[in-house]
This record gives sequence, structure tokens and C-alpha cells, in this order.
Amino acid sequence: MSIVHSAAALIIGTEILSGKVTEENIRPLSRVLRGRGIPLERVLMIPDEKELLIKEIQQLSSQFELVVTSGGIGPTHDDLTVHCAAAALGRKVVRDPQLTELAEEHFGRSLSEGEARLTEVPEGAELMSAPHLKWPALRIENLWLLPGVPQYFQEKLKAIEHHLQGPSAIHSAEILCRSDELSLLGPITELVAAFPGVEIGCYPLFFSEYGKTRLTFDGQDQELIELCLQKARELFAEEILEETSTEAPS
Amino acid sequence: MSIVHSAAALIIGTEILSGKVTEENIRPLSRVLRGRGIPLERVLMIPDEKELLIKEIQQLSSQFELVVTSGGIGPTHDDLTVHCAAAALGRKVVRDPQLTELAEEHFGRSLSEGEARLTEVPEGAELMSAPHLKWPALRIENLWLLPGVPQYFQEKLKAIEHHLQGPSAIHSAEILCRSDELSLLGPITELVAAFPGVEIGCYPLFFSEYGKTRLTFDGQDQELIELCLQKARELFAEEILEETSTEAPS
Repeated sequence: MSIVHSAAALIIGTEILSGKVTEENIRPLSRVLRGRGIPLERVLMIPDEKELLIKEIQQLSSQFELVVTSGGIGPTHDDLTVHCAAAALGRKVVRDPQLTELAEEHFGRSLSEGEARLTEVPEGAELMSAPHLKWPALRIENLWLLPGVPQYFQEKLKAIEHHLQGPSAIHSAEILCRSDELSLLGPITELVAAFPGVEIGCYPLFFSEYGKTRLTFDGQDQELIELCLQKARELFAEEILEETSTEAPS
Repeated sequence: MSIVHSAAALIIGTEILSGKVTEENIRPLSRVLRGRGIPLERVLMIPDEKELLIKEIQQLSSQFELVVTSGGIGPTHDDLTVHCAAAALGRKVVRDPQLTELAEEHFGRSLSEGEARLTEVPEGAELMSAPHLKWPALRIENLWLLPGVPQYFQEKLKAIEHHLQGPSAIHSAEILCRSDELSLLGPITELVAAFPGVEIGCYPLFFSEYGKTRLTFDGQDQELIELCLQKARELFAEEILEETSTEAPS
């Protein structure tokens, strides 16, 4: 199990930026990472352009401890991720024997030239397996290269879940308040000033008939969050409609 | 009407990166821009952090002709966009008289201190109106500062649609093919080589019972796309299940 302190996602695909395809991978990724105590700190979406991809992979992988890419894995001309990741890390592209074996088993015969493209990896890449994961996920240094198709992307998250974790669990709590943000501005400001160690989020629910403000509390220090919640109960009192706490597994 | 050649979106919000809230603004933005002939070339998502926001606003606004931000507009401590945009552009924050008037009309009285925060803008900002748009959108230089709440974000896209357009319409076509990418790799490669001036996308539909490969064609030269489609009809022949063409209004 490796400890990871920071993560970024690189979403690769002209089809997402053009609005032809809806992005569906960020939320499952953020939830899996969060469940492991790893904060997702940056998401970047770029078109399928070779030089840009190489540059952004270099930049993100030097800035974050974990970079998960989505998309550009496949046999056609616009599938550039493996080659660009190799170029970004100064490595050759090679055909992986284990992937070749898996693919030959899948097709029940030796591979065509196009099929063989699916076995290409940056030299030194590792195939990361996990329980209930048929096809392993591709990792090279701190880059995990995942396919863009949401069903396959999500399946391979199992490998990330299996192999990585953050420095400690992230604890979360939230309260739902009756009134809108503007009416609660005084107590919200007071709470934020009193608990700089808790990440406090405040979200208006304009279209809800029930509660109008959602306040969220996040951090690694569970006791501090509990103290912050106690203070919130005092400050907001009858404003509070609901309260929930969750603890991510560490 | 201003002509814009390139656009980027900056999605601001810890709640999106943590997976607490699903991002819903990128797709409507990309479709509106595309309909105006403006390509969306980059999307960046960042948490609510002051220094980071200032840095990324500076970087994106110097790199792209249009930058649309989503989120961080509001009265609470985690609403940083107006102040950070002002800092990024070296401007003061002032209260806008037109926004004040609109807000006073809305509340039916003079504003509280918290409500007055909603009238803050970077000095020199312009309020961009459009038909059927109640609250104008906020623009400063090449930055459009839109709220993150999807209903409001989408409403304010009317102002972008009304005021901006690209250098020319983007034409699109697509075909749906019976077989999977691997079986079609030969003709796809031939088509891509023959039409470097057309942006050709190739997307596998693993979970479709009907067509297995979606090929898309995009560009500003409608005749070239038509020639490319003719060649595709030759190459793919009975593979083609459906064909569609759309022309964005210029």
C-alpha cells in the first residue's frame, strides 16, 4: 500500500470539450480517492493533441503525487495517451507480454497489428491488479493511465482503491439549514473564524423547498470537526433541519 | 458582436473536486460556445483557494481570448471569485450601482451588509445583458464570471450567446458504423490520412447492441467535410448504419 498526499486528474478528449460526450469519470474518481483519504486537488481537460498532452502530463506528474488520466487509450489515431506518457517520461513504447497474453486469451488467437496496439505500454509500466478486476490498470511512475469509457474507467478504480491510500482518513460532516446564506451570514462567519483547521463549505440550495443552506465540514482531525459541529449546533440551533457525519475508511 | 478564437473554462469549487456536488456546467457551456463557432479548448477545476485562483485566472486569461469562470460568486467566506479576478487583473473591488439598484428592487429595500457583497465587482466590470435574461452576466476584460449553480449558470449563457461569436461556424457530421474500431482500423487510418484538414474522432460504443463505432467529423470548411463524408461512404459502405450532419449557426 503506497501513501499518496495529493492527486490530479487529466481528462483527455476533444469529444468532451466539444460537448459531444458528457464527462462521467471525475465524480467516481473523486469519491474513490476521498474514500481512501486522498484529496483530488486539480482536474484538467484537454483535447487530443500530442504536444499539449506531453506537456501537461509532465507538469501534473511533477506537481502531484498521483495523476490519473482518463481517455486516449485504444487502437485508433486519436488514442495518444500511452505514447505521450512515454514521451513525457523519456521512455520507449513497448509491447507488454502480460497484456499480450491476456489479449490473446480474450481473442482466442494471436493478435492482429491493430489488436497488438492495445498491448503497448511505456517501458517499465506495471499492470496493477485487484480482486474482481479482470483487466489490470496501467501504472507508470506516478501516472495511472485509465480508459475514458466510464464503465471501464470505474472498473479500474478498483486497482487504485486496492493499492493507494492517503496519509489519514478524511472526516466529513454536514448540516442542512432552514434559511438562506444571507440570513445566516453572521453565524457562518463566526464559525469559520473559530475553526480555521476545519474546511467549511457553504452551498445555497435555491431550488429546494426544504433547507436553503448546506454547510459542510471536512478535515483529518475528527475531534476538531466534532467541536466545530457542537459550536454549529449552538450558533444555528433551530435552523438545523438535518445533520450527517461520515468517516472515510483509512 | 465580438469575435473570439479560443476559450477556456475555470470551474471553481472544492465541492466538485471532493465529489459532493456533480459538475453540470461544462457541457452546456461547450454546446453554447460551439453553436457560436467558438472552440472550448481547456477546462480547469480548482478548489476555493485564493492564491491559486489568482494565479490560474492570470494564466488562463493571458492564454485564451475568452475565459468563463463558474462558481465562487456569493456572499460567504468561500466565494472568492470577484476578489481574485480583481487581484489577478490589478483592479480594485467596487460596488456596482446598477447591480445595487437591481438588488434593491429585488429585496424591496436598501441592502444589508451581506446583501451588498453581491453587488461587488472588479472596477471597470461591465454587466452584459441579453433578451430574456433577468440578471446580467458579469464581464471584466476577457473574463466572464458566472455563478456555479447550474440553473443560474445556464441562464447567463444567454449573454455569451448574445455578445460573442467565433471566426466562422463549426460544421459537424458523424456516422455510426456496425463493427468495432479494431475491424475498421484500415479504412479509418486511410480516411484520417486523406483528410488532415478535418478533425476526425473515433469512439467505441462497447455497450451498444446496434452500432459499435461512432466516427465524427468537424471543421470550419463545410465542403471539405462533405468530401470527407463521400470518401467515408465509399470506404465504409455497408458498415454505415446512420449518418447525420449539423451546422452550427454563425
